[in-house]
Amino acid sequence: MAKALHTLCASEAQECILRGNFTVEAYTEALLDRVAARDSEVHAWATLDPLHVLEQARRLDRIPKDQRGPLHGFVIGVKDVINTEDFPTKHNSPLHQDDPTLIDATSVAILRANGALIMGKTRTTEYAVVAVTPGTKNPHDPSRSPGGSSSGSAAAVADYQVPIGLGTQTIGSIMRPSSFNGVYGFKPTWNSISSEGQKVTSPTLDTFGFMARDPRDLRKLSDVFGLKDDEAPRKGEMIAGQKFAILRPPMWKNAGPGTVAAMEMAGQILRDAGATVDEIALPSDFENVLKLQTDVLRHEIQVVFHRESTCVRDTMSKELVAATAGIEGTPRRTFLRSFDALAALRGKMDEIASDYAAIIAPSSVDVAPVTDTWTGDPQFNGMWTGLHTPAINVPGFAGEGDMPVGVTLVSGRYRDEHLLQVAASVGPLFSERGGWKSKLA
Amino acid sequence: MAKALHTLCASEAQECILRGNFTVEAYTEALLDRVAARDSEVHAWATLDPLHVLEQARRLDRIPKDQRGPLHGFVIGVKDVINTEDFPTKHNSPLHQDDPTLIDATSVAILRANGALIMGKTRTTEYAVVAVTPGTKNPHDPSRSPGGSSSGSAAAVADYQVPIGLGTQTIGSIMRPSSFNGVYGFKPTWNSISSEGQKVTSPTLDTFGFMARDPRDLRKLSDVFGLKDDEAPRKGEMIAGQKFAILRPPMWKNAGPGTVAAMEMAGQILRDAGATVDEIALPSDFENVLKLQTDVLRHEIQVVFHRESTCVRDTMSKELVAATAGIEGTPRRTFLRSFDALAALRGKMDEIASDYAAIIAPSSVDVAPVTDTWTGDPQFNGMWTGLHTPAINVPGFAGEGDMPVGVTLVSGRYRDEHLLQVAASVGPLFSERGGWKSKLA
Repeated sequence: MAKALHTLCASEAQECILRGNFTVEAYTEALLDRVAARDSEVHAWATLDPLHVLEQARRLDRIPKDQRGPLHGFVIGVKDVINTEDFPTKHNSPLHQDDPTLIDATSVAILRANGALIMGKTRTTEYAVVAVTPGTKNPHDPSRSPGGSSSGSAAAVADYQVPIGLGTQTIGSIMRPSSFNGVYGFKPTWNSISSEGQKVTSPTLDTFGFMARDPRDLRKLSDVFGLKDDEAPRKGEMIAGQKFAILRPPMWKNAGPGTVAAMEMAGQILRDAGATVDEIALPSDFENVLKLQTDVLRHEIQVVFHRESTCVRDTMSKELVAATAGIEGTPRRTFLRSFDALAALRGKMDEIASDYAAIIAPSSVDVAPVTDTWTGDPQFNGMWTGLHTPAINVPGFAGEGDMPVGVTLVSGRYRDEHLLQVAASVGPLFSERGGWKSKLA
Repeated sequence: MAKALHTLCASEAQECILRGNFTVEAYTEALLDRVAARDSEVHAWATLDPLHVLEQARRLDRIPKDQRGPLHGFVIGVKDVINTEDFPTKHNSPLHQDDPTLIDATSVAILRANGALIMGKTRTTEYAVVAVTPGTKNPHDPSRSPGGSSSGSAAAVADYQVPIGLGTQTIGSIMRPSSFNGVYGFKPTWNSISSEGQKVTSPTLDTFGFMARDPRDLRKLSDVFGLKDDEAPRKGEMIAGQKFAILRPPMWKNAGPGTVAAMEMAGQILRDAGATVDEIALPSDFENVLKLQTDVLRHEIQVVFHRESTCVRDTMSKELVAATAGIEGTPRRTFLRSFDALAALRGKMDEIASDYAAIIAPSSVDVAPVTDTWTGDPQFNGMWTGLHTPAINVPGFAGEGDMPVGVTLVSGRYRDEHLLQVAASVGPLFSERGGWKSKLA
């Protein structure tokens, strides 16, 4: 039996469209039907205009075959802190409900110019800062958190409402929801893709990225953004003979049973496939890496939100006021010391990572917690954001309540192509042997 | 005889307005008259709508006295790469002539919320990147360069068309035009004021700043942006007994006679005022600081302009294509090495600067060159942008053709308040004894 259209990943749908099996319009209709059937339960979307989307789909169908872009037929949900020319960007803030910012973020402009269809805006927490869910439910279990702040993108992708979701990460806003929802999440090397046109939170931490159900989709997106390693990775490399590292980060004692089991199983699956797997610890100068990342964030966020704090404070939730208050009672030289110390660790991490095909680290403390207000704990993600490394959440493992939990693959900066290729090799193995399968297809 | 309204600095105009000597409307009319009389020669403005501006002025006049903001009556020109809700932002690029980006940049929103009046958009080079003048002339001598890329802001302030101009700097786009036009230019500590809503060129270098004819105006602007040192500077500190450094940077051999004389005279004036002035050289690890800054810029700009380079290349000038081409033929690890090495120098510079009231460095190679196409050479500015230190161009010196040339005061990061106070002390001395006076008042 042929797969239902909405369950195809973007690359599969594209192949069918190019082969003439169905049109972008028919495919988009299938996605919109899925949204109509499901989103009153999942609440993944902030703005979605079916008529406009279908008009865009027909426009794509009219493009002659030889003029179609590499992302022709890729349908994408855009986190609602990333500007788009055809939908408002509301930041889940009362201050921006009527913003006329109708210009595409650089990332969105690139996607569109390469043939992608923007389906709508996905829900996010207030300014992608606070940890209060935007009403989105985890599609695998609506009593559980969807993660955040890229809540809607992760939930919509997991729920087969759209194959690709855009996200942003400043601590763990791509990795954590990807883990909770059982999808791939890719945070490229910091600033290897421009974040211009997405809400600024912390200029040296904010990272643009995306989520999908298939690593092939991540790769096609990366190509249009020009991600290129210095050395092109060897194609079709096998896992056998490669060396991986299992890294239990600072605060590992907080890991829950789902994450502990996923890390162990990931190592075992790789060993079974013929890889060497080292258990490594970080040198002592990484001990405070989380504090460094937090200091940088708390200072930089205070600068960005100076306008809101001083001019329009009544539009901020109390959680946003607290999150943007700065490093309470500490001098700016504390921030500078942390800023410089974090910078000094980046090259060291590249060097450590260069010994391995990838470092394997936890993506979340455990499976998505049971809560309808909290987006969960990002404590295992922040260090990779601060260190600017690429990171990919690979799903496949099961925890409590048969909920998904992923692991994070990490490499040194600007080894994005390499890491995507590693994810494409280990992903299917983890899916097959990790113990978790989505029941939503 | 009372000064003509348009020649007042913003703080003076504000005092008069608050005293009831004249209204914001009358003051704004005087500025608009000056524009009408002069801008067909200077070409400082990209967009200016007198009727809209006067409407804003009347709105400010209607605000009850006890509800007026700290910048009530400050009239400001905004570089045309910084978004404003009431004027388009055209970036001097054919791609953005009709952009509906009508939302204020964070900086502009803060200024407006504090009572400032946005007069219009000032001319800039294409995306504030290329070194081709935007038609703006140096008001002191129209055969000479106005500098760039904040060309219009510097020229409009120097020409008494507006008391304050906003600028952005990634190499030397505030310091160089300030020096060429004989105005104060302030580049605060990197990211101490949010650059959100201004064109991104290089995320770790782009710095928001402003120009004025009086250091008091710089201080009032800094206050609303929340610039605060860890230790509040002692008020009314005298120059006598303080220690300054004269720093002749890498490539000093390229300095022209105007700059050589200005640096010498600055040292002499400070000695005469009772300060100690050390001639210092930087440690050898600073030797390549310019190359490091350039590597970071050339890589980061390539990322930001990936959209233009790959999707809308026909909208780019050949100069922009060249400037955004990346680090030709060199691997990304070259960039990473430079990125990390530049980061490692920042703390070292803070330490060197901490011994002095300020470091005195050149602001430009010489006076504004005779040219109607080139914005001049920023080679003495880039290191301070890369090192994230605050820097202030202080005018007062004369070079060839009786043209202005300034010197740059520098301190360690987050000593902005301190540096503004030093500038307020040395500025009047340099004006009085440096040999240059504007003939435009």
